[in-house]
Order: sequence, then C-alpha cells, then structure tokens
Amino acid sequence: MLLVVLGCALPLSLAAQSRSVAAAASPKYIRTPAGFLLVLHPGDNVLHELEQLAIKEQIPSASFTGFGFVHPTFGFWDAAKKDYNPKSFRDTELASMTGSIAWKADKPALHMHGVVTDKNFVAYGGHILALEVSTGSVEITVVVNPKRLTRETDESTGAAVLKL
Amino acid sequence: MLLVVLGCALPLSLAAQSRSVAAAASPKYIRTPAGFLLVLHPGDNVLHELEQLAIKEQIPSASFTGFGFVHPTFGFWDAAKKDYNPKSFRDTELASMTGSIAWKADKPALHMHGVVTDKNFVAYGGHILALEVSTGSVEITVVVNPKRLTRETDESTGAAVLKL
Amino acid sequence: MLLVVLGCALPLSLAAQSRSVAAAASPKYIRTPAGFLLVLHPGDNVLHELEQLAIKEQIPSASFTGFGFVHPTFGFWDAAKKDYNPKSFRDTELASMTGSIAWKADKPALHMHGVVTDKNFVAYGGHILALEVSTGSVEITVVVNPKRLTRETDESTGAAVLKL
Repeated sequence: MLLVVLGCALPLSLAAQSRSVAAAASPKYIRTPAGFLLVLHPGDNVLHELEQLAIKEQIPSASFTGFGFVHPTFGFWDAAKKDYNPKSFRDTELASMTGSIAWKADKPALHMHGVVTDKNFVAYGGHILALEVSTGSVEITVVVNPKRLTRETDESTGAAVLKL
Repeated sequence: MLLVVLGCALPLSLAAQSRSVAAAASPKYIRTPAGFLLVLHPGDNVLHELEQLAIKEQIPSASFTGFGFVHPTFGFWDAAKKDYNPKSFRDTELASMTGSIAWKADKPALHMHGVVTDKNFVAYGGHILALEVSTGSVEITVVVNPKRLTRETDESTGAAVLKL
Repeated sequence: MLLVVLGCALPLSLAAQSRSVAAAASPKYIRTPAGFLLVLHPGDNVLHELEQLAIKEQIPSASFTGFGFVHPTFGFWDAAKKDYNPKSFRDTELASMTGSIAWKADKPALHMHGVVTDKNFVAYGGHILALEVSTGSVEITVVVNPKRLTRETDESTGAAVLKL
C-alpha cells in the first residue's frame, strides 16, 4: 500500500509502479534445503543477480541449472587472441542453462553455459557472456557447496578454471 | 504372477502383456534423499506422469532435470495472440530437459524446457507443450522444495510465472 | 615442491611439468553434501573418470549435470541394426550434459546425453558415446542416490534401461 501511494506521488510510469509493487510482494530468491531458488523478471541481468546472491549470502561455491526466456550473448573462445568472439540473440527460449559459482580475487566468478532456441525451434548456444531476461522469466535452482572454491587462470589456455 | 494369468485370459497382445508385467515389477518412480527419480517407458506421457507424481506425493514445489528418447511438441510464444505456436518432432533424443513443478488453482502447474536432437545430431527445442516417451526411456531427477509455490499469470506478457 | 624438483631432473616438457604440479595440487573430485564435484582437464576421458569415481566411491546410483569444452562422439540409435550410428566433433562447447550412473554385470553403466555448440554457436548433440576434455575444463555435479540401481537390456528396443 505504501509503495502504491509513493508511486502516485512520484512521476513513475504505470509499468514502473507495477514493477515496484511486484518487487515488494515477491523476492528475487528464496532459500531451499539445498541452496536457493531464483525467479528473475523482464529486464533483470542474470549474471548480476547471481553475483549479488553470491555476495549477499556468502556462497562458498555452488552449481546451478536454469531455464526461461532471454536475450543472450554467447562467446566462443579464440585460442589465438585468448578472448571470446561474441554473438547476441534476441527473444529466445533459454532451453537449458548450467553453471557454477566460485570466487576470483574476492569477487564472485561465474561460469555458465546455455542453449537457446528461436521461433523456428532451432538451437544455438555455448559459453554465456551476458544474459538478460526478456518478456517472461528465468528460474534458477542453485545447489550450495560449503567449501569455498576459486577460479584460476590456466596459463596455457587462458581459461579461468575451477580449482578443487 | 496374477497379472500374467490375467494377461493370458484376456485378448492382450504380447507387447501389452510384457508391458503389464514390467509395470508390476518396476515402479515409475522411487524416493531419493532430495526428492524422486522417475524412469518412464515407451508410450508414457511425461507431463501426465509428473502431474500424477505431484498430486500423489503432494509435492509443494520442485525442480527437475531429465533426458531420454521422445516424441516432443514445443511451443514458441506469440506475444501478439498470447498463445504458443506449436511444432512436433518424432523419435528424437531428449538431450536436455529442465523444469519445475508448482501449483495453479489447486492443480499441478509444470513449466519445462528441453533440447532434442535428430538422427543428424542437429538440435531443436524450447518450451515443452507435450512429451511422449518413444522407443527407449526418460529418466527424470526431481528435487523437492518444501515450500508450496504457485504460478500466476503475468497480465502484461500472458505468461504463467512462478511466484516466490 | 618435490614434484617441481623431480620435474627438473626428468626429461619432461614444460607442459607435462605443469600438468604434474596441477594434478598434485588439485584432485579430480571432491565430496559435496549431496555427492561429488568433478573438475576434469585437457585430455581427460570423461566417461572413464565417471566410471572410476563410481568404482572408487562405490556409488550405488547417481544423477549428474555438467558443462565444459570437449571433443564429443554422439550416437543415434539405429533400431534396425540395434546399434548406434556415431558422429564425432572437435573443439566444441559442452553447453549441457545430463546423465546417470548405475550398474550392469557389476560394472558401472553410464547413460549420458549432451548438447555441444561450435564456433558459429550452432547446437548439436544426443546420446554421448565418448567425451574427451579439450583445451579448457569440464565441471560435473554428481548427486548420489543411496539405492543401488542396475540397467537391463530391453529386448524389444535393445536399449539398456535403468531399472527402479
């Protein structure tokens, strides 16, 4: 109720108002016996939300799976230049997402791969560089591991590899 | 034994007989520490079996992953008509399946995405509207969350979104 | 330290030296509350490592998910000849991997499906016959089930099916 009143008093669009009310009524994640369940909404930056979860909940390390409807950017590793060649897609089903949370230089270090499909049901995917929720949602199931794990750069390949 | 005797007394095909015996010997699911493991067989309707599991075991909410050999129907959301454009495939490998169980109007409400591959190993997929087990099996690992969750229709997109 | 000294005393390449040091410092897997986490490295045979895990840790049965960078061989079942038609790929992102561990004739019996993507982000996949880690890593999350499960050959299809 308070949020609605504030919304009326400020120059917010109706969409922004309903977003505020929805955000108040519905958290971005809840705890589960094994970790966390996230439900993200249109415009949410999936990598940012997972990083924020890792920091706020001080997750030592974790594995996750997810699915939804997204604008993704994938990157394919170019060994010669030791960097990713990126490609972005719009409005695709996230048919599969698999990843892990660890730490590097005291910051959360995500590694996540995905498969998306377009309106013709054709599948694309790979290493996820960026992921924004499109008109729909993204559900993510996070399973926490109590051992703190780090990623370290493999000097031969340039890849950031999870260290056990 | 009783099923075999009944099978002999009724005009059942040999295939149907062996199906009955297999069903008697092998349940469709077992409990695991975190939830349930399902193994479904040719002709099984995957969505129906998951809904039956949710009802029989009164699952408050759950996440699942799976794989197998299937006849799938995918749907891509058409925002203009607020409905799915469907496409069916036959005899494909279910290379990946990710989904969740919640409730809507006191009925189980599934949301599941998948990737399938054909005899040329080309991948297709998206939002699963229907899924029948083909000649092979489908294995599904269900992780139960003790909090009852519902899906609610998002009025702006028309999508049924998991509510935390 | 000892390994570095030995490395200098033997005719090892720099690459082999760093591999030895890495292997000494970093195990292939660790225990987690629900099972195991594996991180495999270039040249590792994924199926062999999972089979070794099953044997060493006497895993009764398990489900797993994973992702990484791989050389895969997929097989599509040919019902007429009751065998797989294989196809291999090189240097692909493993965008998704889903599988299970059980037993057959007292040996570990794996069943695993995957989706890979190439430098153009196009997806391929299916039933995994062989999987080698390429220049990068493969992370696998294994969830153990304390009930010993076996696979049995379904006479009508020829497929090895998980028995509950």
